[in-house]
Amino acid sequence: MVIGQSGGPTAVINQSLVGAILVAREQKAITGILGARHGIAGIMGEDFIDLTTQSVDQLEQVANTPAAALGSVRLKPGREECQRVFDVFRKNDVRYFFYIGGNDSAETAYIISEMAKEANYDFCTVHIPKTIDNDLKVTDHCPGFASAARFVALAFMGDDRDNYALSGVKINVVMGRHAGFLTAASALARQADGDGPHLIYLPERVFDVEQFKVDVRRVVGEYGRCVVAVSEGVADADGNPIASTGERDSHGNIQLSGSGALGDTLAAHVKAGFKGEKMRVRADTFGYLQRSYPTIISPVDAKEARAVGMQAVDHAVSTGENGSVAIRRLSNEPYASEYFITPLSTVAKETTHVADEHINAEGNDVTHAWLGYIRPLVGELPVIGRL
Amino acid sequence: MVIGQSGGPTAVINQSLVGAILVAREQKAITGILGARHGIAGIMGEDFIDLTTQSVDQLEQVANTPAAALGSVRLKPGREECQRVFDVFRKNDVRYFFYIGGNDSAETAYIISEMAKEANYDFCTVHIPKTIDNDLKVTDHCPGFASAARFVALAFMGDDRDNYALSGVKINVVMGRHAGFLTAASALARQADGDGPHLIYLPERVFDVEQFKVDVRRVVGEYGRCVVAVSEGVADADGNPIASTGERDSHGNIQLSGSGALGDTLAAHVKAGFKGEKMRVRADTFGYLQRSYPTIISPVDAKEARAVGMQAVDHAVSTGENGSVAIRRLSNEPYASEYFITPLSTVAKETTHVADEHINAEGNDVTHAWLGYIRPLVGELPVIGRL
Repeated sequence: MVIGQSGGPTAVINQSLVGAILVAREQKAITGILGARHGIAGIMGEDFIDLTTQSVDQLEQVANTPAAALGSVRLKPGREECQRVFDVFRKNDVRYFFYIGGNDSAETAYIISEMAKEANYDFCTVHIPKTIDNDLKVTDHCPGFASAARFVALAFMGDDRDNYALSGVKINVVMGRHAGFLTAASALARQADGDGPHLIYLPERVFDVEQFKVDVRRVVGEYGRCVVAVSEGVADADGNPIASTGERDSHGNIQLSGSGALGDTLAAHVKAGFKGEKMRVRADTFGYLQRSYPTIISPVDAKEARAVGMQAVDHAVSTGENGSVAIRRLSNEPYASEYFITPLSTVAKETTHVADEHINAEGNDVTHAWLGYIRPLVGELPVIGRL
Repeated sequence: MVIGQSGGPTAVINQSLVGAILVAREQKAITGILGARHGIAGIMGEDFIDLTTQSVDQLEQVANTPAAALGSVRLKPGREECQRVFDVFRKNDVRYFFYIGGNDSAETAYIISEMAKEANYDFCTVHIPKTIDNDLKVTDHCPGFASAARFVALAFMGDDRDNYALSGVKINVVMGRHAGFLTAASALARQADGDGPHLIYLPERVFDVEQFKVDVRRVVGEYGRCVVAVSEGVADADGNPIASTGERDSHGNIQLSGSGALGDTLAAHVKAGFKGEKMRVRADTFGYLQRSYPTIISPVDAKEARAVGMQAVDHAVSTGENGSVAIRRLSNEPYASEYFITPLSTVAKETTHVADEHINAEGNDVTHAWLGYIRPLVGELPVIGRL
C-alpha cells in the first residue's frame, strides 16, 4: 500500500495517517506500507518512507503533532500526472492507495481508480477526508475542521475580552475561501449578551462594504465596541475578492491566506467611516495558526480523524472496493457518530457551503441552529470570568 | 483601596487582580476595595466596581480569563490628570492604590505618590508589574510575558511543521515595539536540526532589508524552506519602521499591531528577490492573540502573576511604603523565584531590551544563553513527532 497526505495540513491529519498505518500493519493482505513524501509529487518521484519500522510510541507522537508528517502538496494532477502515478503503482506492485485530503484528493484517487479498472489492474483506493474548510460533500463534517474551529472559537473568546478591555472596532479575518464554516465557528465565543463577535460575514453571502460600515456603526452605537469575524473569501456582488495580493496558487486560486490585505482594507474602510471621531480600529488575520496550532485539538476531532484512517484500511482490505470515508452524526447529547463509505465520485470535485438555515436573514450572523451543529464537535470551552 | 489595570492586557493580568483582592479582603486596614473601570480613566470618572462581594469561585474564573476584567486604558496621564486622580482619592478616603501595568503605570503611581507626600496625605501606592513585552527594569522578567512567549513558541512549532509540509518562505510578525523578548521566544520552537524559525530579527538590531533577503536565500539554499520570526518593531538604520499604517496611538506611538503591513511588505521583498523562480512566500501577523489567547498559559506565569498581586497588598499594608513588585530568579533547575520591592522610580519611564549576550553576532538569531533564560518560564512544550 501507499499512503499520502495532500493540501493544507490540519492539526489532526497525522491521526488519520497513524490510524491507517496501525491497522495496515495488522493486515496479511498488506505486505508493505509506503508513505509518499509530499503526496502524489512523492509518488511520481518514487520518494517513499517505509512505514513499517517506526515504534508505536513514535507514531503516537506523530499523531499528536499538527501538519502533515509525510509532507503535503498543492498539486491538482492532470491526466498525465495520474498516469505517472499509476505507472509507479504498477511498477512497485502497489495494490492499495490511501489519500488523505480534500475534494481534489478524492478526484485524484478517482481518476487513478478508473485507470486501474481500464487496465484490469487489481487495485483499491480509499480517500480519507480532511479539511479545515469542512466543505466536503456527503460527510456530516470533515476531520480537521473541529480543531480549527476550536482554535477560532478560543481566539475570539480571548480577543473579545481584549476588545472589551480596550474598546474599539476589531476585525478578525478567518480562513475559508468559499465556505464559511470556520468563520461561523467564531460564534461559539459568545457566552453572555454583548459578547463578540458581533458581526459574522461568510463567503456564502455577497459582501457589501457600505452595508458592513453601517452594521459596524450600529454595533458600536449599542455596545461602544465591535468585534467582527470575516471570512478571507468574502467577495462583492460580481464575485471579486474585497482585497487580495493578486497572486495565484497552483490550483489557479487567488492567494487569500498568508497576507493581511483583507483585514487592513476593511480596517481602512471602517476608519474612513469614523473620520473625525475617535475610534480605535484594528485588524488581525489569524492565518496558518488556525490549522497548525499544537495543543488546541478537539477531542472529538482527534478521535474521528484517527477512526477515518482506520476505517479506510479496514474497508479496503475487507471489501476491495474504492470509496471515501464519511461521518454520519447519530446524536448530539451525548455526541455520537458512525462511519460509512461513499463512492469517490460523490466527494470529488464539488464542495458544500454553510446551509441557508445556518445564516441569518441579514447575512451578518449565524443562527441558533448553526450552534447546535457545531457545538458538539469542538469540545468543552472555558467559562469566561467577569466582574 | 483602589485597584486598576492599565495598558495592553495579558493572559494572566487577572491573576494579579484576584491575588490582590483576596489578600486585601483579609486586611483590617483595608475597609473597602474599589476596582477602577479602565484604569485611571475610571478613577477620574469615579467609575468603580465594589470588589468585596464576589464569590471566590467567581474570582477564580476571572483569574483564569485573559484580558483585563476591570477594563484597561491606554492613557499616559499628565500632571493635571494625576491631580484629578489624587483629588478623587482624597474625596473617597482612598489610602492604598494598586496599579497593574507597565512602566507608564509605574510612573503614574509615582507621580500620585509624590502628590500625596507633598499634601501630607497618608497614602501608599504599589505598582504591580505586567507586560507581554517583558521590558520592565529591575525585575528578572514580567508577569504576562511567559504566557505570551508560550503562545509564540507553540505557534512557531506548529507553523514550522506546516512550512515543512508545504515548503516556502514563511514570515511571522511578533509583538514587541522596542523589545524583542517575545520574538526571541520563537526559538523555543526548535527541537531538531533544521527546525524553524531559521531567522529571528529583534528590534534591538538595525533591520537591513537587503541583508534580510540574503539571509532568507541562504536558508532556502540549505533547507529548501525558511521560517522567519520578526518583531513588529524592526526599524532601519535611521530608526524608521520598515512598514506601518502611519497611525499613532494616544502615547504618540506609531501603530504597529493590528495591521498586516509589515508582514506583507517583507513578503513582497522576498518575492521580489525570488523573481522568476518558483517560491511560495507567505506572511502572518500573530496580532492580539499573543496576549489574550485562553488556555495557553504558562503555569509559572500564572503563579507569579498571582503572587505579585498578593505581595503588593501585603507589602503596602505591612510597611506602608510605596514601590513596585519585582521578581528575582533563584534557580533554573528546578525553577524557583522570590519577590521583592523596588522603588517606583526605578521602574517608571525607562524600559529594558534583550541583552547583547542573548543576540547572535549577525543579528539574525538568539544565543544558547537566551534559551537558558526563557525555557524555565514558559512551561513544558509538546514533543514534535516526526517520521
